Amino acid sequence: MKRVAVYPGSFDPLTNGHLDIIGRGALLFDELVVAVLQNTSKEPLFTVDQRLRTLRHVLRPMRNVHVDRFEGLLIDYVRRVGGSVIVRGLRAISDFEYEFQMALMNRHLTAEIETVFLMAGEDYSYLSSRLVKEVAQLGGSVRGLVPPQVEKLLAARFGRHPRRKSRK
Amino acid sequence: MKRVAVYPGSFDPLTNGHLDIIGRGALLFDELVVAVLQNTSKEPLFTVDQRLRTLRHVLRPMRNVHVDRFEGLLIDYVRRVGGSVIVRGLRAISDFEYEFQMALMNRHLTAEIETVFLMAGEDYSYLSSRLVKEVAQLGGSVRGLVPPQVEKLLAARFGRHPRRKSRK
Amino acid sequence: MKRVAVYPGSFDPLTNGHLDIIGRGALLFDELVVAVLQNTSKEPLFTVDQRLRTLRHVLRPMRNVHVDRFEGLLIDYVRRVGGSVIVRGLRAISDFEYEFQMALMNRHLTAEIETVFLMAGEDYSYLSSRLVKEVAQLGGSVRGLVPPQVEKLLAARFGRHPRRKSRK
Amino acid sequence: MKRVAVYPGSFDPLTNGHLDIIGRGALLFDELVVAVLQNTSKEPLFTVDQRLRTLRHVLRPMRNVHVDRFEGLLIDYVRRVGGSVIVRGLRAISDFEYEFQMALMNRHLTAEIETVFLMAGEDYSYLSSRLVKEVAQLGGSVRGLVPPQVEKLLAARFGRHPRRKSRK
Amino acid sequence: MKRVAVYPGSFDPLTNGHLDIIGRGALLFDELVVAVLQNTSKEPLFTVDQRLRTLRHVLRPMRNVHVDRFEGLLIDYVRRVGGSVIVRGLRAISDFEYEFQMALMNRHLTAEIETVFLMAGEDYSYLSSRLVKEVAQLGGSVRGLVPPQVEKLLAARFGRHPRRKSRK
Amino acid sequence: MKRVAVYPGSFDPLTNGHLDIIGRGALLFDELVVAVLQNTSKEPLFTVDQRLRTLRHVLRPMRNVHVDRFEGLLIDYVRRVGGSVIVRGLRAISDFEYEFQMALMNRHLTAEIETVFLMAGEDYSYLSSRLVKEVAQLGGSVRGLVPPQVEKLLAARFGRHPRRKSRK
Repeated sequence: MKRVAVYPGSFDPLTNGHLDIIGRGALLFDELVVAVLQNTSKEPLFTVDQRLRTLRHVLRPMRNVHVDRFEGLLIDYVRRVGGSVIVRGLRAISDFEYEFQMALMNRHLTAEIETVFLMAGEDYSYLSSRLVKEVAQLGGSVRGLVPPQVEKLLAARFGRHPRRKSRK
Repeated sequence: MKRVAVYPGSFDPLTNGHLDIIGRGALLFDELVVAVLQNTSKEPLFTVDQRLRTLRHVLRPMRNVHVDRFEGLLIDYVRRVGGSVIVRGLRAISDFEYEFQMALMNRHLTAEIETVFLMAGEDYSYLSSRLVKEVAQLGGSVRGLVPPQVEKLLAARFGRHPRRKSRK
Repeated sequence: MKRVAVYPGSFDPLTNGHLDIIGRGALLFDELVVAVLQNTSKEPLFTVDQRLRTLRHVLRPMRNVHVDRFEGLLIDYVRRVGGSVIVRGLRAISDFEYEFQMALMNRHLTAEIETVFLMAGEDYSYLSSRLVKEVAQLGGSVRGLVPPQVEKLLAARFGRHPRRKSRK
Repeated sequence: MKRVAVYPGSFDPLTNGHLDIIGRGALLFDELVVAVLQNTSKEPLFTVDQRLRTLRHVLRPMRNVHVDRFEGLLIDYVRRVGGSVIVRGLRAISDFEYEFQMALMNRHLTAEIETVFLMAGEDYSYLSSRLVKEVAQLGGSVRGLVPPQVEKLLAARFGRHPRRKSRK
Repeated sequence: MKRVAVYPGSFDPLTNGHLDIIGRGALLFDELVVAVLQNTSKEPLFTVDQRLRTLRHVLRPMRNVHVDRFEGLLIDYVRRVGGSVIVRGLRAISDFEYEFQMALMNRHLTAEIETVFLMAGEDYSYLSSRLVKEVAQLGGSVRGLVPPQVEKLLAARFGRHPRRKSRK
Repeated sequence: MKRVAVYPGSFDPLTNGHLDIIGRGALLFDELVVAVLQNTSKEPLFTVDQRLRTLRHVLRPMRNVHVDRFEGLLIDYVRRVGGSVIVRGLRAISDFEYEFQMALMNRHLTAEIETVFLMAGEDYSYLSSRLVKEVAQLGGSVRGLVPPQVEKLLAARFGRHPRRKSRK
């Protein structure tokens, strides 16, 4: 039996914490679909197309990982691609309760799909797309927090703030 | 001494989790007032009048439960109706800290009114008005999560999305 | 309908946090039974009889509060005394999850008895019998943390450690 | 690639919460080894042999589930059986932080083995072996909390306490 | 070595909980800079200038406390004023995880600056600027929650709601 | 004014997480006293003398750090050495509530001494003396978790378990 897992998210922007979870998920399941939520209501930083391009570029070396977009109910999408698993990352500092609430609701909607929680590396325990966005916006360096492609996109977006290291 | 308790909320929409707490509260106190907050700032899904109608319809069989609306400080309203108790539900997955903060602030404002926490059934541990709204909006089934009246109202609002069970 | 509530605990020793909850519970219900658990396995600081004497002495002025002992399943005891409610205190700093687990188990064992959570005053948010015991044992002052009778019992037990305030 | 997962625990006694996780794990991985920890220091309720017999009896219908015992470091055992995954259950009311700490330590000891968290059904959110033991010991009914075999073993151990339903 | 600490915040409005932390921070470090964040995106209750005036008035008696404004990355500001410490208050009921996330991100951005957490008095465990704002807006008394100057400003802003104590 | 801080603990054994906090505390205060609790009741792994020797050896290069032992109430000890600050480490995965409870109790006992919380590095978020002990006891490698001296002591204690890395 081939097991297909879906890792849903906004990835706005993609962080190294996401990559960490994707790497772990790709080892656990036969196929991993990274699915970008098309949320029309929120004001995104990058368009869905930009995010898909970035994900495809960064994830190209991973053979059993695919990138896709979805809208509507997550469980409907998972069923449509023949998946049986939803992958979610948990950080040590994490909105654990929110994740649990979503997973229980999804289980209520269908018992056929299982949510599996993976633990992000502790280096990413403080990392979130929101925080990365804030730091980049204020001119802080996001090196090491996001893949190089995303670093460039953020620099292009918010202008280059050449924060010199203090000279003393 | 007759004890009057108030169960405040937005009930936008009413869920089976709310009904669970109302049933428990009605057994504990001589009179339970279910009080709909008229919050002018937020954009509600249903009008206060719609919510009052739904509550009155669903709660009609419960003799010691009354439905009302309020605005302003909760403790002022509780005093006005001769109440001495505020009832709040706690879910296993719950914004416990928020509830505690509100209760301590209310106690600071008046020592005469006590907040009592009841535990919702574990079947409702993942349920919230917000989540029900999201699921309905995306065309998911909310059967078993809300009373039938609310299910109809949500269907009328978001259109019928006849989500067929996968046929295989 | 007369509502009888049971407030169970070890009360080893009784603290001002317990008294705070007892005072609140006595206002909410027609009768409140403070029930000392006879736990034969743990090594108590005071005997059950000493604890009963202390509770009866301190609670004498409260007309609708009774003091009793129990062993076995709590819900069996609550039924035996004609109670329908279990009262538990929650502290801002609290083993909330443990309380919830017990309450859900008790609900599983019988649906007839409801657990009601009251919020202790924030002055008692750090207070526990265990911590009071430790402080007293190390010669620290427990004034303001326990009723005067308990203060005397603790002094008699651990010897008087006249901790003078530093004179500078 | 065949994926072997290990679900370690004391199972003293086995609960329906454990069975829930085992069922979910068996669907996710090609083989699931339920591994009983031989902890020589703690005083168990049932011997490791009794627990193995119970597990084998209850899990016989599940073809890709095996039952075993282990001592020493968990990750050494997982490697020895050719496993690459550790399965752990999370309850809505859960010692989440403890689980995370163990998982991060195990990851520190070896990066080759991934810990995967599954969410127990909300009906088991309050269930633990410790609590089942306490209820059985006090003569409470554990029906619905454990498999029938375990119910019988507990009755044999603690004597039958024929708790009659209250007759009124 | 002179140690300069920065206590950043919105202070919209200043509460007695903030003052509690400022008092503790002023004892621990040689100089404490209370720094008002100029956040152009949020709709503030009071202007930054009003907030600076209030802080300067209330904090005048504290010799080693200075009041300032900042925008951009906090760590850049701390460096600019020669600081080595960021002070943050933790409440018993607190968004602890948020604070930790910010502190770890700041440490990632620079290892030279340490975040130090102080514990607010338990009387302020339920206090937040947001909650004070809500209470004042609904006509509730905020006496004891904010300094007298802030009480006056809030009354001027929301009109005086002479909430009489109930006379019965 | 010279500020003396005390970092109390069992240090049984000393971990790299402790060293991380000691390094941070030594930068923040003029003098840091690392104080080993002589707890006669618990069964320690190493004697207090062994722990003092290890601490003194490892901390020798840090000029403003001293090592000492204490028994009785912590606040009495802090006063005796002229200290005004207690330093405690918080881990991302941490018994935060326990720390808060102790700190509030200590503040109740004396308002003169402030507890300051420092955040351990995220690499140590899963580290505790208890867990290190367990891993060493089961023959796991504790390299990178404790200083080399402690690694040797643990090996001497539990015998060398030459866990070879798997050869494939």
